[in-house]
This record gives sequence, structure tokens and C-alpha cells, in this order.
Amino acid sequence: MKVGILGLGYWGPNLVRNFMAHPEVEKVYGCDLSDDRRNLIKSRFPAVEVLSDYNELLGKDVEIIAIATPVGTHFKFGKMALEAGKNIWVEKPFTATSQQAIDLNELAEQKGLKIFVDHTFIYTGAVRKMRELIDSGEIGEIKYFDSVRINLGLFQHDVNVIWDLAPHDLSIMNYLMPNEKIVAVAANGVANYYEHESVAHLSVYFENNSFAHFHVNWTSPVKIRKMVVGGDKKMLVFDDMENFEKIKVYDAGVEITTKEKIHQVLAQYRMGDMYSPKVEATEALALGADEFIQAIKENRDPLTSGKDGLEVVKVLEASEKSIKHRGQLIEINQVEMV
Amino acid sequence: MKVGILGLGYWGPNLVRNFMAHPEVEKVYGCDLSDDRRNLIKSRFPAVEVLSDYNELLGKDVEIIAIATPVGTHFKFGKMALEAGKNIWVEKPFTATSQQAIDLNELAEQKGLKIFVDHTFIYTGAVRKMRELIDSGEIGEIKYFDSVRINLGLFQHDVNVIWDLAPHDLSIMNYLMPNEKIVAVAANGVANYYEHESVAHLSVYFENNSFAHFHVNWTSPVKIRKMVVGGDKKMLVFDDMENFEKIKVYDAGVEITTKEKIHQVLAQYRMGDMYSPKVEATEALALGADEFIQAIKENRDPLTSGKDGLEVVKVLEASEKSIKHRGQLIEINQVEMV
Amino acid sequence: MKVGILGLGYWGPNLVRNFMAHPEVEKVYGCDLSDDRRNLIKSRFPAVEVLSDYNELLGKDVEIIAIATPVGTHFKFGKMALEAGKNIWVEKPFTATSQQAIDLNELAEQKGLKIFVDHTFIYTGAVRKMRELIDSGEIGEIKYFDSVRINLGLFQHDVNVIWDLAPHDLSIMNYLMPNEKIVAVAANGVANYYEHESVAHLSVYFENNSFAHFHVNWTSPVKIRKMVVGGDKKMLVFDDMENFEKIKVYDAGVEITTKEKIHQVLAQYRMGDMYSPKVEATEALALGADEFIQAIKENRDPLTSGKDGLEVVKVLEASEKSIKHRGQLIEINQVEMV
Amino acid sequence: MKVGILGLGYWGPNLVRNFMAHPEVEKVYGCDLSDDRRNLIKSRFPAVEVLSDYNELLGKDVEIIAIATPVGTHFKFGKMALEAGKNIWVEKPFTATSQQAIDLNELAEQKGLKIFVDHTFIYTGAVRKMRELIDSGEIGEIKYFDSVRINLGLFQHDVNVIWDLAPHDLSIMNYLMPNEKIVAVAANGVANYYEHESVAHLSVYFENNSFAHFHVNWTSPVKIRKMVVGGDKKMLVFDDMENFEKIKVYDAGVEITTKEKIHQVLAQYRMGDMYSPKVEATEALALGADEFIQAIKENRDPLTSGKDGLEVVKVLEASEKSIKHRGQLIEINQVEMV
Repeated sequence: MKVGILGLGYWGPNLVRNFMAHPEVEKVYGCDLSDDRRNLIKSRFPAVEVLSDYNELLGKDVEIIAIATPVGTHFKFGKMALEAGKNIWVEKPFTATSQQAIDLNELAEQKGLKIFVDHTFIYTGAVRKMRELIDSGEIGEIKYFDSVRINLGLFQHDVNVIWDLAPHDLSIMNYLMPNEKIVAVAANGVANYYEHESVAHLSVYFENNSFAHFHVNWTSPVKIRKMVVGGDKKMLVFDDMENFEKIKVYDAGVEITTKEKIHQVLAQYRMGDMYSPKVEATEALALGADEFIQAIKENRDPLTSGKDGLEVVKVLEASEKSIKHRGQLIEINQVEMV
Repeated sequence: MKVGILGLGYWGPNLVRNFMAHPEVEKVYGCDLSDDRRNLIKSRFPAVEVLSDYNELLGKDVEIIAIATPVGTHFKFGKMALEAGKNIWVEKPFTATSQQAIDLNELAEQKGLKIFVDHTFIYTGAVRKMRELIDSGEIGEIKYFDSVRINLGLFQHDVNVIWDLAPHDLSIMNYLMPNEKIVAVAANGVANYYEHESVAHLSVYFENNSFAHFHVNWTSPVKIRKMVVGGDKKMLVFDDMENFEKIKVYDAGVEITTKEKIHQVLAQYRMGDMYSPKVEATEALALGADEFIQAIKENRDPLTSGKDGLEVVKVLEASEKSIKHRGQLIEINQVEMV
Repeated sequence: MKVGILGLGYWGPNLVRNFMAHPEVEKVYGCDLSDDRRNLIKSRFPAVEVLSDYNELLGKDVEIIAIATPVGTHFKFGKMALEAGKNIWVEKPFTATSQQAIDLNELAEQKGLKIFVDHTFIYTGAVRKMRELIDSGEIGEIKYFDSVRINLGLFQHDVNVIWDLAPHDLSIMNYLMPNEKIVAVAANGVANYYEHESVAHLSVYFENNSFAHFHVNWTSPVKIRKMVVGGDKKMLVFDDMENFEKIKVYDAGVEITTKEKIHQVLAQYRMGDMYSPKVEATEALALGADEFIQAIKENRDPLTSGKDGLEVVKVLEASEKSIKHRGQLIEINQVEMV
Repeated sequence: MKVGILGLGYWGPNLVRNFMAHPEVEKVYGCDLSDDRRNLIKSRFPAVEVLSDYNELLGKDVEIIAIATPVGTHFKFGKMALEAGKNIWVEKPFTATSQQAIDLNELAEQKGLKIFVDHTFIYTGAVRKMRELIDSGEIGEIKYFDSVRINLGLFQHDVNVIWDLAPHDLSIMNYLMPNEKIVAVAANGVANYYEHESVAHLSVYFENNSFAHFHVNWTSPVKIRKMVVGGDKKMLVFDDMENFEKIKVYDAGVEITTKEKIHQVLAQYRMGDMYSPKVEATEALALGADEFIQAIKENRDPLTSGKDGLEVVKVLEASEKSIKHRGQLIEINQVEMV
């Protein structure tokens, strides 16, 4: 298989390295307008062929075009690649609007091509272990989901902090709660440094009365990457800043009893043992690259497909509307896929 | 000075102990309908005189009545005490509605009596140190305030988690940002165990574009008590779960520069030294009791007066409206005090 | 049962409180030369009868005398109590020399009385849980034991830091490794502030080639209370500074394999899951008091008897000899008990 | 400048990468008997010339030979290089015996060549910051030094855990306490898995009554990399497992006062503020490579010279004697350098 990487900036070199290392990849092309970036890739990976013209890349007999450019350009470059008959790998977030995501998904469907959206976290050992625990029934029904991803980060010029950081957590939530339907979102936050919000809080309401919340923040002096999944049997905590013990399972929860005399529901808590399962350390991006290659070979959607990309973009889009109106509730239209 | 304590349940004994220990208090009465509670107090504090009838307590020549009963009864018992010519100490939250708070404040004003609302945290060494740091100008202008108070807690029957936990954090915020005016709040959350919300997120908007957020939660397997105050010079973190180093001051922040070529604002971050000042360990409640006694003697409002209590109740009340409408923005009417 | 407490300083009031609360104790006497201390106890516990004369206390019909005085006086006061026909509770360390411990044990034996040494940690939920895990066989054979108990502490005038802090850890070790025989100790440290050592490291060698080490230190700016028990199946960590998760069990260890070609033993490590069992929060001292009362009633030695006290004192005594000679190995004479 | 790297196993590739990246290095040779290792280096660094024969490498016009082979071969390969007129870079520990270190140092002296011992930690931002703090006088006179370096590690076949792990900490101690003279060491530990000790405790006595202790351990389920430097003014803690706040300075200490009535020295503690200075993140190995290159150009000893290597080896050698005799005190002969 041959792969072309468009965009050799921050993330592109990681794609080059991981596709190069895949046993079924025989050739990797790198494409960027910047001479410096092309030269850097060439010096680090002499076997990679570098190009400056995207059309030239589209003319090569590559099966995959990986698009690692700013989100505003994903639709244009993705569409060109699909029209040229290439399967596409797109960095997160998938597109700048849900309509663009729908259009790309439809085009891929028509052409019989596959789309991979790089929700990298889905391929980490920690997230796969959480899904395994949830699938086993040990956690029970998920009542709430809480995510915090904050630190003193680089501000982005083109998008706010939700578009920058929340795709990670939204894709994890969707993966861990595959059967829950989001009905509405509300977002609050503040743009107190420049035009885009640098602190934001996103609330997500589900059809079944579950609830999720995301705190994303570029201006915190302390770095936190923590997720709590509250099940009605047990509770999961994922702390990505821990070097070891990233996942903890708490045999803790809330018990409802009825007190007879007064027609009252009594909620009490219970705290038992905790355990921390071993988490595999395989590089997520290598597993992602392999998943896409196998999906193409087997003519199926990859685990993180354009449909998953669309689900995340719908929430991001709604959150942006909400935050501009100080938390106004925005319903998520349940767009039907073709 | 003589003091009567109404309600000898969870918090009342702490009031008894602290007023007993105050050098200017000569006599403490305890009042509760429960024989068990009165006997327990009597056995632990033989010098306390216990009563079962509130009217009898009101008939004693006490200068202070401390009300440590459920919030729904604060107005009734507080009004009776004021009408009997007593200064009142009221547990948090001050009252069940802002109108009740306004009425009590007006009544006290008319009678020339003082109201102390037990926002205990204001008297801790940690919060006083934070205020001191902010007053010194070292932190700069406060851009955002973030608070997390979560654990596996006892559910309350009569109120939701915001009314139970947020008064602590709201009173701290008001104390640390005395000149900022709250204009509106939005609250999201879920009542997925019983009728009241057990998880809630409260966003607070200020007139000057500052922003605050509060996460309160009775259903988290991990216990977090953390606050971040983001100034434009430095940032403060208060972690109440730390035995030592409760307060950290980060010489970190966001710097805005203008990039000439494109009319763009560049926001960058800066991370320098951190320091953790020593925090005094005096018991907050002892300082609170003393503050009220001195305020009465000096005929002035205490540091945490009925006016402060009202400010907190207004936010709680608005948050309750908002959360019932999934985050609808509720404006805070700027009630003028007499 | 009636109990007399000798010494109402730092620890004595805790003994008063716990014996008072025991359902089988009908009367508690407190004895101290200091008027202030007696008055303090009287005001806090009006039901306690206080005395200033130890002989007067010995004349009362108490079944237990608890001795909470400086270690140098334990022998004298303990002997007087035994001779007066009282069972004795002695604070740790049991005595100032192993000969004193032997003498008290022999005297109690002759008189048919019981001795309880207050190795309080044995009665904590954490230590009992560790013993339970070890007894279950889950940990395997214990290969090493490591303990750190350091902080910025109050210097004691009469003893060095080993005599002050190590009894806790030595008693825990003896309790967790009841069948291992100590053969020798070596201690290093430094007395760089005043005449007694304030930093010390104690190595303990066992007959079966197990090894233990204790770091005790009054001069550390950070407080650490941590123990590692390395079994050949699993490993235990006890961190007493943790509010939750005090005990962690690591499914981790060392595996020995033989590499054929070269006659070489290959040691490798294995790291699996971790779990943290729930630990009971009952106050240790209350359990200790109950254990002694039951032991007396059942005419048996309590769990922490004078024999256990002697074992700890032998190590302390040897460590003192060793540290004065910069780590010289001191053999532990295996004193036979009557 | 041209550089040859002998040994392309675990650490060698890091040397290749750092010397390659140095602006004054024009050519790097890699030498190893293993085809696999040479091929791996060639594929990652196409500009490196690889050789299998050490004598061939010695024949090249390189100014530096870096020796990254097992410690048992350092002397032989180092001597060959010096005799061939090359400056040598030697991995830690410098040599297997102090006599070998003395011989290499003398040979280099005779030949006018320089020796660099790769005590990498000396070039980290954290250790340089600690030295800066100590040099400023802020910490005061160092009273004790405590180091813990433990985890579930790979057992080494040829040496015990002291030889493997302690060189890091000993070199840091020597760097931080340049004027203190070690007089004796005592080591305790146990070899309970195979022939060499896997757990060890090393006590170091200084002429001025300072004291240091090192805990090294391959069998701990938890990973700790922590150092405490106790000064008589302030105390330093270096925690290398912290991602941020690696260094903390505690305004804490011990105060000695004299109590008049009894001729007694009272030691008390004082606990004030803490601060954590920013630590530079430059890669230590890059700074080390540059230091050696500049030292050669300036004809001076590098910061971590063969003399420093010898000081560490003397302690390792003495510790090995001591541990075989269960902590027997071994005096360090103060070998005079030529």
C-alpha cells in the first residue's frame, strides 16, 4: 500500500513515521508548501518522497491520502482526494461544519471509498480498556460522564478552545457510550484574552437522561487530563497525567432505598475496593494506521469513520452556537446518514 | 455575652464548642426538640444549659441566637429572634429565597441588630491568604474563577447539590472578587438518582467580562476540593485536600502580542516559578465567632453579614431556575439594599 | 471494670476517652502530678476521678493501670502496679532496656497478670488488612520490608529518633512477619543538631535471608509514612498519608528464569494490575482497649503483649549500640521467655 | 571535530544523536560487533559511518572516543583509546575498580588528553538549579542528604543495584557538596533473588559530621526518584517523577535554643513558605556533549572529569566491601591525584 501525507507541520511527521513503520506500507509521500518542512522530513526519513504540489500527490498511485492541515481546509482537500479516488485519513476535528462532514461522507459512499477520522485516543490502551470494562457490564448503566482537559496551552487563531481540545473527549465519550443519543448541548465560557473562547464548559444532554460535561481550558496553570465515568454499578476514573495507574475502577456508587414512613426516596453512597487494571502501552497512532489499512482491505468502515467524525462535529457546531448566546440550549438534529 | 444555639444536630455542637471557648462568652444555651441531642450536648458540655422550647430560649437574656436548623426554617426562626431583639447567626445558605433574605436584612436594620451568615470558609487561613495575595495586586485583575467540590457525598432530601455545596464556593468567590458584579448565571446538571440534581455545573457571568464556574457533585468516587483563580499577572490554586501547600501561586499567565503582518492578536503563555505560602491553621469557626462578637460590640456589620448571605442566595435561586430549563441564562436582578 | 490512667499529658487524654467509651468500663481514674492537666481532664470528662498520688491510685480497686509516662519511668511504675496486683497497659516503647522488659514479663507471669503494650498501629484497619492479605497467601513469602517515617518533627530530649518513631514500624513488621526470626541489626545515622540522632537508618537481617529497613527522621521538610512489603507473589504498599487508598496490592514481582547457554540466572520483572482494598476506619485505640479487656476476662495474653513489647525493645537496644559505632552489626540474642 | 561511539546498544544511539546534532561535530562513527545494531543506527542516521572493528575506529582521525560498553570493559577500551591519542568519554560508572580509574586518569594526564565521565544528571536543569541555590547560600550548610531511587527495574547480571543505580546519586551529591570530604561508608542490603544485591542502603559519613544515605532498589512496585538536601537554613527536595515542580525549596528547618533552668538544648522546628523555581528543560546529554567539546578546545578538565568518576568509584567499591559484611564500616582512603 502507498500513502501520501498532506501537511508536514506539527502532526504530519508522526503520520509519516507510523505509516513508514507499517509492514504493509511500501511507499510514503510527504507534501507541503514549505521547503523547510519538506527538507526536515527528508533528512529524518530519507526514504520518503517529498512534493510541494498537492495535485501532483493526487496523481500518484497512493491508496490513502492523510490530511494533516488546518481544519478549515479539510473539506476542500478531502473532497479533492475522494474525487481522485483516494481513501482519506483526516485529522480531528473532521470538518469545520457538519454539512461538510455529511458531504464528504456521501461522496465517499458514492465512490466506494473509506474515511478515517484521526480520533487517536480511541486507539490508546487506556480508552480500549475502559470500553472493555463497560462492555463487560461491570460498570453498569452510565449515568454521567465528566471530562477535564486543561492546562496553559497554545492559543489557536482560527478556533476556540472547544474546537481545539474537546474533539478528543467527545470522541472518547461517543466510543464509550455508543448507544446513547445526544439530544442537546449548552456551552458557557469566556473569551477574555482575544476573540475566541479560551475557557469553556460544555454540557451534553442524552435522550436517556444521562448527562456529560466537558471543561476545556487554555489558561490553567495546572495541567489536568481527567475523566470520570459514573455507572450505576461502579465508577471509572481515567487520569492521563498518571504515568502508571491511568485507569481506576471504584466499587462505589449510589444506592436508592425507600424510607417507609415518609414517602421519600433515600439516596446513600457506598464505597468499596478500588482496582487499577494494567493498560497496554502500544502507540495509538500505529494501531490507528493499521486499523485504516485493514478496513480498506476488508472494504469496511474503520473504527473511527467519517460517521464518527460527523457526530463530533455536530456537537462542536452546536456548542459554538450555544456559547455565543451564554449557554442557550441547542438541540442536536439527528441527521440521518445515507 | 450570652449565646443561644438552636439546633444541636450535625453542626450545632461545633457552635456550642466554639462559643463556649470564647473568652467573652459567659453562658451558652442549647435548644433542640430531640432529647438525645440535648443529652449528648449536656454530657459533653456540662456547663451548657439545654432547652427544648425555642420560645423559652428567646426569653433568655442572650445577645446572640445561632440558627443551625434546615434552610427551610431559617427565615421563620431568624425572624422570631430578630423580633425578640436578638442578633442572629445563621448557617449557610442564609435563606431559602432571596426575598426572605431581604426581609430579614430589613428587619435587622430596623431593629438595629446584626446578622452573621456562617460562610465559614471566609475565616480559614487559606482563603484569607488568597484575599491578601489578591489585595496586594500580585495576582492582577481576575479573569476567571474555577471551583470543583465533588465527592461521594450524602444526598440531601430538601435541596439539590448546588444549594448544598455551592454556598461555600460562592461565598469565597464574592469575598475574593468584592468589586465584581454578577450579571447572569446558567446552570446545567442532572437529577438521575432522585428528584433533586446530584451533579451540577454553574456558570457565572460578570459585568466586566470575568467568568466563573462551579462544579458540584455528590456522585464522584474521587474527592476534589480545588479552586483556580486566574489573574492577568499570576494564578492562584487552592487545593483543600492537600495537608500542606494548600495554596500555590503560579508566576504563569497569558501574554498578548500583536503580529504585524496580519492584523492578528497572538496569545502566548509564560510559565515561571511557583510558590506556596504558609497558611495559618487557626480554626475558622473560632475566628467567625469572634468576628460576630466584635461586630456586635462595635455596632458594625460582620465580615459575613446578611448582605453577603443575600448575594449568595440570589445566585442559588437563579441557578435553580436555570437548571430546570437546561442552562437557560438567568439575569441577577441587582436588588438594592435599604 | 475499673481503669486508672497514669500520666495525663499528650496521650493520656486519648486513653481516658477510649476507656470511658468502653461499655464494660464503669469507672476511670486519672493520675498526674500537674494540677493543670488534672483540671483539664476534669473539665472535659467530669465523670473521671482525678488524683495526684500514684500510690493512692494503686490503692483503688482498678483492674488496669495504664502507664502513659516517659519511657524511662515505665519499668518503675509498671513494677509497682504489677506488685499491687494490677494488669498493666504500657505506652510504646515498652521499656528502656530489654532486661526491664524481661523482668516485667516475668513478674506478670508470676502474679498471673496481663501486660498490654500500646503498639496502636496493630489495631488500625490498614495493618489488620495487610495481615489478612499476607495470611491469605496472596502476597507470598516476604522477601523484604521497607518503612519510611519522616517529617519535621518535635525533637525528644531523652531518646533518639529510632526510640521515638521506629517502635511503630517494628511492631507492624513483627505483626506482619510473625514467623521470621531477626538475627542482627545495623543502624546508621547522625546527631547533627544535638546529642541524640535525628536521622537514622536501621537495617534488620532475618534468619531466612529476608531483609528490612527503616528510615526515621525528624528533619525532613516533607512528611512521609510509607511501607513496602515485597512478597514473592505480590507486593503491598501502605501509605498512611493517603486519605483514601491507604493500601495498594501490586500484582507485580520478580521472576527468575534460567538462561540455558550460559549458566546464568535471569531475573525479570512483571507488572500487572493493582488494587486497593477498602480499609475499616474504626479508631485503633478503641479496639486496643477492648482487646485488653477481653484478654483479661479470658485470661490470655493480648494481641500486643509484653512479649511483643520485648521484641521491639531488643531491636531498639541493638540499634542504639550499632549507631554509636557507625553501623556495626549487632546480633540479637534470642532471649527465651519463661 | 570528529567523534567515534563504541557500543551501539541501549545508550549509544543517544550519544550518536546528540553528537550528530552538535554544530561543531562534522563526522560521527559508530562501532559495534552486532550487525543488527549497526544496521539500526545506519537506518536512523544515514550520515553515520558504522564499523565493526574497534581498532579500525581507533585508526580514524577522531578527537573523541565515547565508550558505551559494559563497565567491565571500560578500562581496556579506555586505555586503548588514550594510547591511540584520543580524548575519552566514558559511561557511568567510570571503571570497575578505583585502581583502574587512577590508572586511566594518570595515562590521560601523561598524554595531555581529557576524560569525560557521563554523569548525565549533572547537566540537567534540576541539578544545576540545586547547585545554584546552594551556591547562593540560601540553603545554608548541608547537614544531610537523602536519596531514593527505586522501582521495578531490570536486573543486571554483572553488578549489584548499587553499581547500577547509585552512580547517578553519588555524582549529584559530590556536585552539590564539592567541599565535603567522605570519610567512610556502610552498606546494607540483600541478594534475595540471585547472586547480586537487588535492594541496598548506603550510608556515607563526612569529615564535617554531615551524613548521606542512598536507597537503591530494583524490586519496588512503586517508582520513586527523590532527593532531600537538608541545609541549616532551608531544605531542598528534588522529585524527578514530577512533570512540573521538580524542585521545591522549603523555608523550614530546625532551630536550637537553650532552656535555662535545665542545662538542656531544645531543638524545635520551623515551617514557612515553599517555592518551586522554574527548571530548564534542555536535554542534559546535549549540554554534556558540548561541555566536553569546549573542555577539549580550552584544554581544561570537563565538569565531570575522570577525577569525579574516580570519587564515585571509590564509594561504590567501598560499599561493595561493606555490604558483603552486613554493613561493616569501610574507610575511604583519600587517594591523592597526580
